[in-house]
Amino acid sequence: MEFNLKEAIEVLERTPQTLEHFLSGLSDGWLYCNEGEGTWNAIEVVDHLIEGEKNNWIPRLEFILQNGSNQPFPEFDRFSHLKNQSQRTIDQSLQEFKTIRMENISKMNTLIEPADFELEGYHPAFGTVKIRELLSTWVVHDLTHISQIVRIMAERYRSDVGPWREYLGILKKRDLNNK
Amino acid sequence: MEFNLKEAIEVLERTPQTLEHFLSGLSDGWLYCNEGEGTWNAIEVVDHLIEGEKNNWIPRLEFILQNGSNQPFPEFDRFSHLKNQSQRTIDQSLQEFKTIRMENISKMNTLIEPADFELEGYHPAFGTVKIRELLSTWVVHDLTHISQIVRIMAERYRSDVGPWREYLGILKKRDLNNK
Repeated sequence: MEFNLKEAIEVLERTPQTLEHFLSGLSDGWLYCNEGEGTWNAIEVVDHLIEGEKNNWIPRLEFILQNGSNQPFPEFDRFSHLKNQSQRTIDQSLQEFKTIRMENISKMNTLIEPADFELEGYHPAFGTVKIRELLSTWVVHDLTHISQIVRIMAERYRSDVGPWREYLGILKKRDLNNK
Repeated sequence: MEFNLKEAIEVLERTPQTLEHFLSGLSDGWLYCNEGEGTWNAIEVVDHLIEGEKNNWIPRLEFILQNGSNQPFPEFDRFSHLKNQSQRTIDQSLQEFKTIRMENISKMNTLIEPADFELEGYHPAFGTVKIRELLSTWVVHDLTHISQIVRIMAERYRSDVGPWREYLGILKKRDLNNK
C-alpha cells in the first residue's frame, strides 16, 4: 500500500494549477477537439472534474462517515456535466475547479484523520470499499483525466505526424485499443 | 491536416510550465516511482525532454534546411539521458527544460516560415519526412511524455484504489496492453 494523505494531497492540490497552465489561452482548435462522436473535449473533462468535486468525493466521504457500510452511497452520474452545459469560458471553469478543489481539500482535513482510513462504506456496484481507497481513487481519477486531455489533443495531430506515429505511444495505444 | 505553427507553439510553450506546476515540490515517492524495471520515472522523462531539445528537434530542422532529403539525418538516441544522469534536482531540470524550450521556439521562428513546411528530409528509419511532420511530432512527443508521467504516477496507486480500478482508464489500459 502506497497511500498516504500528505502525498495524495500533493497531487490533488496540483491538478487545478497544472490544467490551468496547460489549457488557459489555448486556441479553440485544441479546446474543442475530441476523439470522435460521443467523446469529450478538454472543456468537458474539466466540467466533469468540477462535478466530481460537487457530487462525488467529499459527499461520499461524508456519507461513509455518517452511514458506514450500512447503506450504499448514491451513484455518481459520470455524465451529468453534459446535461447542464454552461456557457462558461475555459478560464472560468478552471477557476471554479481550483476554488472548489481547495475548499474540498480543507474540508477533508477537518473530516478525517489517519485512524479513519480503514473505515468502510458500501459502493452500489463494488460492495465494501475503504476510505483510503476512495481517497486514492480521487487522486488517480485526476491522473486519468489529465491523461485523457493530453490524449485528446494528441489525437488531433494523428495524421500530421506522418510516419513518426510509429514511435508515439500516445497514438499507438489507441491503435491497439481502438478506444 | 490540422497542423499550424501558431497552435503548435501554443502547446510547445505550455509544456514546461505545465510540468513545473505538476512536479515541482512533489515528494520523492511520486518523483522516483516507475512502472517496473527498465522503465522511467518522472525525472528521467524530463531529462529525456531536455535531450530532445538539445539533440533532436531543432538540430533535425536545421539538418533538413541544410541538406534536404539528400542524406539521412543522424539518429536520435532516445536513451542518452540515462547514460549521463546528472545530480540535478527536479527544479533545476524543469528550469533547464523551460529555458532551452523557449530558446528553441525562438530559434524555430527565425529558421522557417510556412512556405518551408513541405520541405523534405530523410529519416534514417522512415525515409522521406516533411518539416510539418517533424514539428507536429515535436508537439505530440510532448503530449506522449506528459501522458507517460501521469501514467507512471497512477501506477503507484494501482492496488490502493481497490475495486475502483475497474473505472480508471489509466489503469485499465495497462491491463490490456501489459506495457
